[in-house]
Amino acid sequence: MTTSFPVNRALEIIGGKWRPQVYCTLQDGPLRFSDIQRAIPDVSRKVLTDQLRELEQLGMVRRVDYSTEKHLHVEYSLTEDALGLQPAMNALCSWGECHDNQ
Amino acid sequence: MTTSFPVNRALEIIGGKWRPQVYCTLQDGPLRFSDIQRAIPDVSRKVLTDQLRELEQLGMVRRVDYSTEKHLHVEYSLTEDALGLQPAMNALCSWGECHDNQ
Repeated sequence: MTTSFPVNRALEIIGGKWRPQVYCTLQDGPLRFSDIQRAIPDVSRKVLTDQLRELEQLGMVRRVDYSTEKHLHVEYSLTEDALGLQPAMNALCSWGECHDNQ
Repeated sequence: MTTSFPVNRALEIIGGKWRPQVYCTLQDGPLRFSDIQRAIPDVSRKVLTDQLRELEQLGMVRRVDYSTEKHLHVEYSLTEDALGLQPAMNALCSWGECHDNQ
């Protein structure tokens, strides 16, 4: 992080094309990769993989592997830290919904 | 605007390096150009001029010219539309302040 302005620090973490959509998709609870991909139109497998990895490295997303020998089962969820952004994300979402035509 | 996701629409308008700082500087009421520039470290005259013009075109900033023949006096303020983003900006600010070390 290079900026000292708090809003910019938040936006560096949660801004960009895909991260807000990944965030909002995970707001209701843990999901598997295929569920997230289904919820986000147009995201490719590679891009979503990269985004989830970056968000994990930033401490925003937790990846838990429940796989057994027979079944691959990985779930992604928001961390406590990430959940602290919910008021901001909800407010941005409400405002964006009211500005559909601009 | 090309995106259909509400959070992204909001971030396209208020994201970037300087816009959050211009926004927060104007939150407490109208200011003159020189006041805004003083409040934002490192912003150049040209960049701030461009940012204010863009925000004005987006309907976020109002520019009122009170100049007389003798005195140049222009004030900038947030529009009603822009003030609707205050909950989001305050929440982003609080979160960013708690993540100073990342």
